[in-house]
Amino acid sequence: MDIKLSTQPYKGTRDFYPQDMRLRNWFFGKIRRALETACFDEYDGPMLESLDLYAAKSGEELAKEQTYNFTDRGGRGLAIRPEMTPTVARMVAAKMGELNYPLKWFCISNMYRYERPQRGRLREFWQLNVDIFGCDTFEADLEVIRSAISLMRAFGADEKMFRVHINNRRFFNDVVSAIAGTDLEGSRKVSKVVDRKNKVPRENYEQSLKELGLDGEKIARIDALYAMGVEEATALCPDTQGAQELLSLFAALKKTGLDKYCVFDFGIIRGLDYYTGTVFEVFDEAPENNRAMFGGGRYDNLVGLFVKNAKISGVGYGMGDVTLENFLVTHHLVPETLGASTKVLMTRFDDVPLEAYTAVVDKLHAEGITATLYLGNKKFGKQIDFAVKDGYTHVLSMGGDELAAGTVKVKNLTTREETAVAIQDIGGFFK
Amino acid sequence: MDIKLSTQPYKGTRDFYPQDMRLRNWFFGKIRRALETACFDEYDGPMLESLDLYAAKSGEELAKEQTYNFTDRGGRGLAIRPEMTPTVARMVAAKMGELNYPLKWFCISNMYRYERPQRGRLREFWQLNVDIFGCDTFEADLEVIRSAISLMRAFGADEKMFRVHINNRRFFNDVVSAIAGTDLEGSRKVSKVVDRKNKVPRENYEQSLKELGLDGEKIARIDALYAMGVEEATALCPDTQGAQELLSLFAALKKTGLDKYCVFDFGIIRGLDYYTGTVFEVFDEAPENNRAMFGGGRYDNLVGLFVKNAKISGVGYGMGDVTLENFLVTHHLVPETLGASTKVLMTRFDDVPLEAYTAVVDKLHAEGITATLYLGNKKFGKQIDFAVKDGYTHVLSMGGDELAAGTVKVKNLTTREETAVAIQDIGGFFK
Repeated sequence: MDIKLSTQPYKGTRDFYPQDMRLRNWFFGKIRRALETACFDEYDGPMLESLDLYAAKSGEELAKEQTYNFTDRGGRGLAIRPEMTPTVARMVAAKMGELNYPLKWFCISNMYRYERPQRGRLREFWQLNVDIFGCDTFEADLEVIRSAISLMRAFGADEKMFRVHINNRRFFNDVVSAIAGTDLEGSRKVSKVVDRKNKVPRENYEQSLKELGLDGEKIARIDALYAMGVEEATALCPDTQGAQELLSLFAALKKTGLDKYCVFDFGIIRGLDYYTGTVFEVFDEAPENNRAMFGGGRYDNLVGLFVKNAKISGVGYGMGDVTLENFLVTHHLVPETLGASTKVLMTRFDDVPLEAYTAVVDKLHAEGITATLYLGNKKFGKQIDFAVKDGYTHVLSMGGDELAAGTVKVKNLTTREETAVAIQDIGGFFK
Repeated sequence: MDIKLSTQPYKGTRDFYPQDMRLRNWFFGKIRRALETACFDEYDGPMLESLDLYAAKSGEELAKEQTYNFTDRGGRGLAIRPEMTPTVARMVAAKMGELNYPLKWFCISNMYRYERPQRGRLREFWQLNVDIFGCDTFEADLEVIRSAISLMRAFGADEKMFRVHINNRRFFNDVVSAIAGTDLEGSRKVSKVVDRKNKVPRENYEQSLKELGLDGEKIARIDALYAMGVEEATALCPDTQGAQELLSLFAALKKTGLDKYCVFDFGIIRGLDYYTGTVFEVFDEAPENNRAMFGGGRYDNLVGLFVKNAKISGVGYGMGDVTLENFLVTHHLVPETLGASTKVLMTRFDDVPLEAYTAVVDKLHAEGITATLYLGNKKFGKQIDFAVKDGYTHVLSMGGDELAAGTVKVKNLTTREETAVAIQDIGGFFK
């Protein structure tokens, strides 16, 4: 066949070469450790799910439009998962009676969304999902926000680099109702307008609110909320459940020393109808990149689509790999070298038998030191070039003389220092 | 909506609940560490690839039959990857001129094959792929086999539990040619019959060989090869390239102490035409489960489908998660408990403020100890039940009296021992 295939990955997807993979493993490794230390348990589910799972949540049309979907030979409608929530809801529902609540669960998985690729929005992306299921009190909201802060801090980010913007959907409805006299449905409609405030011209924003019955004075009172702290804002409807929830959460954030990372923000809505209480978004505070990176909130009735009359609440968030990577790069939080701090190449000469070299490498491996024998028969200079290009920190050499003397020459590629080490001590030398 | 959705995962796929995920993370973590210590670099590619990639290798009909495939809105034929080789070939071809050879690469990824689910053969499975690219000498074959042995040993498997069965496709052709006078094409046809020997009745096997021109005496000489060691077998065509390659490899295995894990096996063919030299399969030696678990070999012209006249050779293997799990379970190589060796639950009483508890948990986290505060307001007994069910090793309690005294009670759930520890020393207590 003469037609040659393209070497490009499919549009909107990425190849992870070793250096890309080291970065991905580094940041998801840090996240995994931070979450496991806080007793979050990792789970995973299949890449393919029944299309019904997404259709039930978003309607069939939207589900079909936004996912990669197709019909299998048995006539089942399938979709590649565009998000994790329906999968985890299904998993919790399947074992609802036997699970040990509250569940603190997380997942690091790839997803596919059928959309036009653009900066920060790929068709295939990796996503962290963190959730607590089966705890109705504000302590779970606190724990989830706390975990998001821990992750950022695990990377060395401080309160000058990021901020958690917090609101509460119940409070939103309560305070809009108090100001504008709207009923629950009316407040929800206002939330849709507020959610799009920064995406439309000011006059359209006002026009939309006017259409919902808010006059200029009421709009001004809504406007004032954006600048308020949590005490001032909650004072507008002090006896409502929403205000109480917000105050409890902020009091706990303060007492546990997390308040410096957090701020009340009336503008945080998080589009989906799905959220019922606390909602939050973590912002990048870099002036050149100031924007929401990821977020989440409390939602109820997770398993409702699967089990009649069952009710298990959840609170959680999701974070994409591209977003996190952009943040870490902007704030210079990615170390210059990733991977093993010591990486040793055993070079070769033709006149020394293979097994003399593999014995040295075996000694290094026995001590857990990252090492390999150079594979092939290139000249010594080429072997050194290979080592430098591939980030080896040390090069060993052993010719006939060294072998006879029972030593190996160790060259540190950073300091250029060279040392002769007895073969039997080579493991200890690097420890 | 009254119709409730199914909670079952799609046929042939699995949900990984935390206990399943701990097992998967444990074994892939061990594999990752063993390979990284030997300087193998991890890579990954997208789940979706152009269908052409598989059609070019296996023909469009087979590619369509064996993969989940569909057409996107731009009319591109896509498939969910059924294997990693076409992806890695594409990646190497894309950066052919800039990569630092030899490459020692591995990947741990999920794949989909459209087949009837059965024991050990799922539609979605996770697979390790290990390859060395760009090294033509037998040292790469040795290194790849060595890495397979290292992985097995990393799990505590010894030479009584597994064995690497090795053959060489070039040798196979050479020795069959020496015995039966076949040309290369004829020897290849014989290899297809030998490959299916254990799957068909003896008379069919003989009949197939007779159709290829082998008489009873030649068949008997072929039969004799199954029982031969490498010296005896290679003596039948001593001057051929195939025999020399086999002898070099076995000599190196012996000198490097790996021969006790290896055996020559004339019956190892590995169906695909794709292999050109060394082929091997790792067998489970358990009498009740004696069978090939995984395998691989040397193949040439990896990038030929992408780049005209380019030639980069490879040698490698792939291993599925289910196969490995079956092996580890059969040989009792899975530890009883996976995950953190110390896992601490801070229980709660209503009369102690939240921040007093989170301060203790913070101290534990600062020392890297896996710990959490119990979320919710259940009675103390229920909190203990939660801890026992979820594998916590220690339970802390702190009532008003302890708080006043600046201590916390530590209960070891294994020994039932209880100790009072000063709050300020709690991190050190567990270290």
